[in-house]
Amino acid sequence: MLPKFDVLTDEQINKIHKNSLKILQEIGVEFSYDPAIEVLKKHGQRVEGHRVFFDPDFVEEMVEKAPAEFTLHARNPEHNLVCGGESIIYMPGYGAPFVYDADGGKRDATMADYDNFVKLAGASKNMHMTGGTVVEPTDVEDEIRHLKMAYSHIINSDKCFMGSSSGYEHARDSIELTALLHGGLDVIKEKPALICLINSVTPLKYDDRMLGGLMAYAETGQAMVIASLVMAGSTGPATMAGALSLQNAEVLAGITLAQCVNPGTPVVYGSTSAITDMSTGSLSIGNPENALFTSASAQFSRFYGVPCRGGGGLTDAKTVDAQAGYESMMVLFATSTTGVNFVLHTAGILQYYMAMSYEKFMVDDEIAGMILRYLDGFDCDSDEKMAYDVIEKVGPGGHFLTQKHTRKNFKTEFFKPQLSDRQSFDGWSKDSLDTNQRAKLKWQEVLANYTPPELDPAVKEKIEAFIANRSKELLK
Amino acid sequence: MLPKFDVLTDEQINKIHKNSLKILQEIGVEFSYDPAIEVLKKHGQRVEGHRVFFDPDFVEEMVEKAPAEFTLHARNPEHNLVCGGESIIYMPGYGAPFVYDADGGKRDATMADYDNFVKLAGASKNMHMTGGTVVEPTDVEDEIRHLKMAYSHIINSDKCFMGSSSGYEHARDSIELTALLHGGLDVIKEKPALICLINSVTPLKYDDRMLGGLMAYAETGQAMVIASLVMAGSTGPATMAGALSLQNAEVLAGITLAQCVNPGTPVVYGSTSAITDMSTGSLSIGNPENALFTSASAQFSRFYGVPCRGGGGLTDAKTVDAQAGYESMMVLFATSTTGVNFVLHTAGILQYYMAMSYEKFMVDDEIAGMILRYLDGFDCDSDEKMAYDVIEKVGPGGHFLTQKHTRKNFKTEFFKPQLSDRQSFDGWSKDSLDTNQRAKLKWQEVLANYTPPELDPAVKEKIEAFIANRSKELLK
Repeated sequence: MLPKFDVLTDEQINKIHKNSLKILQEIGVEFSYDPAIEVLKKHGQRVEGHRVFFDPDFVEEMVEKAPAEFTLHARNPEHNLVCGGESIIYMPGYGAPFVYDADGGKRDATMADYDNFVKLAGASKNMHMTGGTVVEPTDVEDEIRHLKMAYSHIINSDKCFMGSSSGYEHARDSIELTALLHGGLDVIKEKPALICLINSVTPLKYDDRMLGGLMAYAETGQAMVIASLVMAGSTGPATMAGALSLQNAEVLAGITLAQCVNPGTPVVYGSTSAITDMSTGSLSIGNPENALFTSASAQFSRFYGVPCRGGGGLTDAKTVDAQAGYESMMVLFATSTTGVNFVLHTAGILQYYMAMSYEKFMVDDEIAGMILRYLDGFDCDSDEKMAYDVIEKVGPGGHFLTQKHTRKNFKTEFFKPQLSDRQSFDGWSKDSLDTNQRAKLKWQEVLANYTPPELDPAVKEKIEAFIANRSKELLK
Repeated sequence: MLPKFDVLTDEQINKIHKNSLKILQEIGVEFSYDPAIEVLKKHGQRVEGHRVFFDPDFVEEMVEKAPAEFTLHARNPEHNLVCGGESIIYMPGYGAPFVYDADGGKRDATMADYDNFVKLAGASKNMHMTGGTVVEPTDVEDEIRHLKMAYSHIINSDKCFMGSSSGYEHARDSIELTALLHGGLDVIKEKPALICLINSVTPLKYDDRMLGGLMAYAETGQAMVIASLVMAGSTGPATMAGALSLQNAEVLAGITLAQCVNPGTPVVYGSTSAITDMSTGSLSIGNPENALFTSASAQFSRFYGVPCRGGGGLTDAKTVDAQAGYESMMVLFATSTTGVNFVLHTAGILQYYMAMSYEKFMVDDEIAGMILRYLDGFDCDSDEKMAYDVIEKVGPGGHFLTQKHTRKNFKTEFFKPQLSDRQSFDGWSKDSLDTNQRAKLKWQEVLANYTPPELDPAVKEKIEAFIANRSKELLK
């Protein structure tokens, strides 16, 4: 893993940190959930109605209680993940309501799409988790969607996944299901197995749904990402330093609450801040500002001693074209080289989170593989790798293609693309497929060949019974 | 400008450096040009035939004579460029024989293409130079091609450009022409105005054409990039550390010769090393290994105290698709964040240097602009930028869109794309143009609106007379 690089000076970090604490203390944050207000009041914070004014020292003291890293446990221990430090965790896009197809078409996402994206993530060697809410399956009733989504992750893969944070009750369902998978609530309380996404409502609010989720996860020691999405220019100031200060204040408020509920709760500092495209008024995520917010957030996470979430293969494009490629690579590369640990939205996203695309998933999977190879850097550990002997043997004007040293090393030293075309023009022009078209063939092949890992039938039965029972209750 | 980041540890740098010196001392380098052999002999290096064995201390001593940075002078002083340190210089692709069009077609490059690419670079605010050999204009006789190419740069733009290095005589022609443009050879000897590209022949050779060029530039104090392109797996070892050692040995040999000819000659450490795609046997440049070689070379340049050349918007794609986008962004982003100063091939390249594309030029120009914005980082210098007051004014749940602060700041804080689409799906689907198609409209618009800067008629006359006279001599 390469050294991480910084986009802010120490002086800039301090200025922004102080600006955030001043915002928390003097402007305050609104929490529209009484149990959260009660917890913060009990911990001595000044409260007016639903507005909480935070004491700066208290915030710093609470943030210190959050662990610098933690392990997220998978059904298959080979897929356990350390979150924090040098680690990087990739997973698919999150929350898109639409699916865009290779020919430029658009449709609502379904549960079948959901299963497919979980399988693609399960099959990928670059995706470390299958994520959560990989699309919004609009053909499933809202009341039980969280159960169906969890079930998809449980039966289609043995990697870690994310649970619902849509209110206290749904969050508890996700936690119960995960407990059944791992052998009980006590087991996962000891060894966290679930992580969820808690978003603020910028500027300076948290709603009751998210706060319920936060409290359910914190109470049971499960992990959570606490994220702020400042749209600089609309939900936040149009200056980068101002927007970052606002984001930072919101995330600190969330982390503080989680630590009040249960000190030591594993939290991830989450940034998804980006800009408003001022000509359309919409969110824009495939840009240098997003890359900067992400890189700066990684630095703030190191400053606060907690893992970081940010970035992904992010684009504003509507089709899998050059823009989709360069925007996604910029954001994911900046994410990965500046030290983000937890990367939601690594693969599949089009049009600022509005859509997932199967083809884009395959493109981003290739991008992720390329970046992981880059992060591996140079191996200088042996004479074999330093290659003096073979250079001497070949000498000036010679050739390495037929050397044993070459055959022995190229497979481990060189990244092997799954999607990128490296042919001559003549080779390529036999079918002239662009990446979008090649990606379509590729995902169809991967899905056709995918076999989900075995799940213990007794466990499966318990999980299905739980879901059947809860569905009846929730749909009544 | 952000801090540069390292991909090698100090220990790795030292190991590779020593490996290179051992290669130079014990295996040696072939120079197929007698004047170069004479110079190196005179400086006490051991020579056998055309093979030179370098003394390690002597190499280090010579490399120390190269300046850490230098200024390249343009006809328009506003376009003067510092090369070295924190600076970054972008210019178009170099040397491609073909042009690929937006519909997947391929043709030989012409002088008309040459002029067009120089104009596009002249018009771009992200290209700092118009470069050199922006394509190989195959409709111009080889003997006088260098004159026509220089003329195109001189009349179509007032930015810096590159000269021929194809043998001593052509190199002298380029230098004479540049001297006419700047008011005499004495003027440019004092203030270098021309730079050329010197390539080794890997492994461990330099040919007479390049050595003639090197010596002509060094004698007149003009600048040069000394570059090695190791194709790991074919012209070099299949290990990254071995290939980098070989590249480093070749570049050090070239720098040493240039400093022997004229101590203090401005040289740029050039890397274009990449890998061989083992399934096709061809060069592959749009990959993490290329990005690593480039990043490592920037680090070696800092180690030796000379400016660095590397990278660009590099891809193996044959059309301007997602692959072209993600590969080009990866290499140019790694190039720009790890400290490369001089970036040949920033814009236009397709299929591992084989082709230029107008559409790709526009895509890469956008990528370059995005990266330059990223490098600008955060401005935390004023209360205005920290935005506390506007955050307080808006408060929890408010909106920033209508604030004066927003209108005042967004134009300077946010990068404004020229090519990227940020519309809704419905807006985009009115014409459903992909980036390749949009880029076609864009370059046609830029060329239609381009007016070359004025050139003093007396200077123009002298330059045209020189070219006419030399053409007669060379074609006789």
